[in-house]
Amino acid sequence: MRIAIDAMGGDYAPDEIIAGVVESIEFLEKGDSLILLGPAEVIESKLGSKVLKKNADVIRIVNAPEIIGMDEPPVDALRKKRNSSISIMNKMAADGEADAVISAGNTGACVAASQLRLRNIEGVNRPGIAVVFPTFEGPVTMCDVGANISCKPINFYQYAIMASMYSKHILGIENPRVGVMSIGEEEAKGNEIVKKAKELIRSDPKINFIGNIEGRDIFKGKCDVAICDGFVGNVVLKLTEGLVDGLFKVIKHELMHQSMILALKFKPVMMKMYQKYDYHEYGGAPLLGVDGTSIICHGSSKARTIKNAINAARKFYKVGINLKIKEYLATTTVKGIDEQYHNI
Amino acid sequence: MRIAIDAMGGDYAPDEIIAGVVESIEFLEKGDSLILLGPAEVIESKLGSKVLKKNADVIRIVNAPEIIGMDEPPVDALRKKRNSSISIMNKMAADGEADAVISAGNTGACVAASQLRLRNIEGVNRPGIAVVFPTFEGPVTMCDVGANISCKPINFYQYAIMASMYSKHILGIENPRVGVMSIGEEEAKGNEIVKKAKELIRSDPKINFIGNIEGRDIFKGKCDVAICDGFVGNVVLKLTEGLVDGLFKVIKHELMHQSMILALKFKPVMMKMYQKYDYHEYGGAPLLGVDGTSIICHGSSKARTIKNAINAARKFYKVGINLKIKEYLATTTVKGIDEQYHNI
Repeated sequence: MRIAIDAMGGDYAPDEIIAGVVESIEFLEKGDSLILLGPAEVIESKLGSKVLKKNADVIRIVNAPEIIGMDEPPVDALRKKRNSSISIMNKMAADGEADAVISAGNTGACVAASQLRLRNIEGVNRPGIAVVFPTFEGPVTMCDVGANISCKPINFYQYAIMASMYSKHILGIENPRVGVMSIGEEEAKGNEIVKKAKELIRSDPKINFIGNIEGRDIFKGKCDVAICDGFVGNVVLKLTEGLVDGLFKVIKHELMHQSMILALKFKPVMMKMYQKYDYHEYGGAPLLGVDGTSIICHGSSKARTIKNAINAARKFYKVGINLKIKEYLATTTVKGIDEQYHNI
Repeated sequence: MRIAIDAMGGDYAPDEIIAGVVESIEFLEKGDSLILLGPAEVIESKLGSKVLKKNADVIRIVNAPEIIGMDEPPVDALRKKRNSSISIMNKMAADGEADAVISAGNTGACVAASQLRLRNIEGVNRPGIAVVFPTFEGPVTMCDVGANISCKPINFYQYAIMASMYSKHILGIENPRVGVMSIGEEEAKGNEIVKKAKELIRSDPKINFIGNIEGRDIFKGKCDVAICDGFVGNVVLKLTEGLVDGLFKVIKHELMHQSMILALKFKPVMMKMYQKYDYHEYGGAPLLGVDGTSIICHGSSKARTIKNAINAARKFYKVGINLKIKEYLATTTVKGIDEQYHNI
């Protein structure tokens, strides 16, 4: 399998990206290869001739001299910078020269480029980014977290299908319970789009649908899949990060205030938890619904994140999630759904 | 000041509500009185004749035999149950028989009853619930968290004004920095309503507006006021609760796994933090924009929450926030704003 990685994407690029790529080599299987995209001379000098020589059969560099900034308007940037890593790697995937693409760069540009080049899976209206929240009660897959900020009910339904597939085949949850993020457990709560979305999801007997879920339920083991629009999902994702950081800061402060010895003893426990429950652990978030393997990483990705993202891409590709989604969509009885779920 | 309290609202009513009322008596000032609403015989028996007799000049019971359930559709429930505590107390406030109302009951019913009876402040289109997040960097006021799930830009603007007033006059933050919850720091990000809302807020030079804020910024000291629609705000509020609980569960588990002694030593630190940073501390959330003092408490309110809510109501009333909002709205230069901000 050939995995293309954007060497220039993210806050710690290219150093951490390249470090992650090097770290991942030992986990690759025979026949796997890694394609690094970015300005060739930068990548070559960062890798060093020794590493390059040693891994000549595994690492390939593809020159992509242009860089899309984290804050550039995605569609504009893609149009202007055809020689950026994000543009080239998605084109390579479309042309059959790469089996997966990974980037920690501009999320909007990654989504747009993958949608443009890989195209959507037949029957999917809009792709969605799925992240996994590692919780005490098990992993919860949330979709969408930022690809689509104005969701129609049909998008929610398709996210429910695709995220269920992901939860089942990647995370090993047999019959994932699907909830729709809303503002109360009661059936009547939520806005019109959410209500229509629930109607639609409920009409598909193959989805293990549990109805509304609230923000707190994600961490209480109530569901395995949480569906929402990209605006709500993105707020949730970033809030979670900020809150976890903030809470650890408070704990540290309180402990140091009480006893330095206690604070020092607590430190390794904290580090262990950080490793176990933070987003770096899951590496990247798959863009569900495009006809290929596109993994979007956090802007703050470190070497460990990239290494895990490479593993995530391998699993996603080898399990053949997209084929399973295609089969599902081809046989679902809810297929000929009314136009009302498209436009609201 | 006369404060009306719904004895039957919330998951722990009436016991915890009544306990909170009794606990708050010692903090009252001369002339303050508490009006308890609910089935009179229930309240009387819970209070006990001794307490009642001792506090005859402070506590008054008003019989409200009907109870609105937590899950009842608000408007329906208010129409059918005119003798419920929520109905009667808001009517009393409108008739000048109470200066503030407090309930931990059905949030939708509280919002609807206060809006119906107290009416909106002149110039306010829709009221919003403001909660205070106690963060390591200081308190952050978020509005709206559930009164209005389909916000127009004009509502965002008014929430920015009202929450700023609250932050300044209640929390003592001189020139509160106001951000709008969105999905990226960059100006271009966010949906159409958020973009229009920002335009409007920015056009008012008296608001210290900092633009987009992301979920993580709330806990990073980047803003003092966070504005969002009630759907997003409610998700954020409940997610925060769930995540804090979930994280403490994980910490406990990890500590017990490492060392029981360490776990035991950590317990008091955890309890202290819980007290300092949880939502019970701020008591209740004011419904900003109604022409009166209406405090909405969490459904899981305990005695401490209610006691703090009574204090919050006193402060809200005595500081005269509503007068300040009226003055602001009467003099703002952004007053004659285009209809486009009302309808989108």
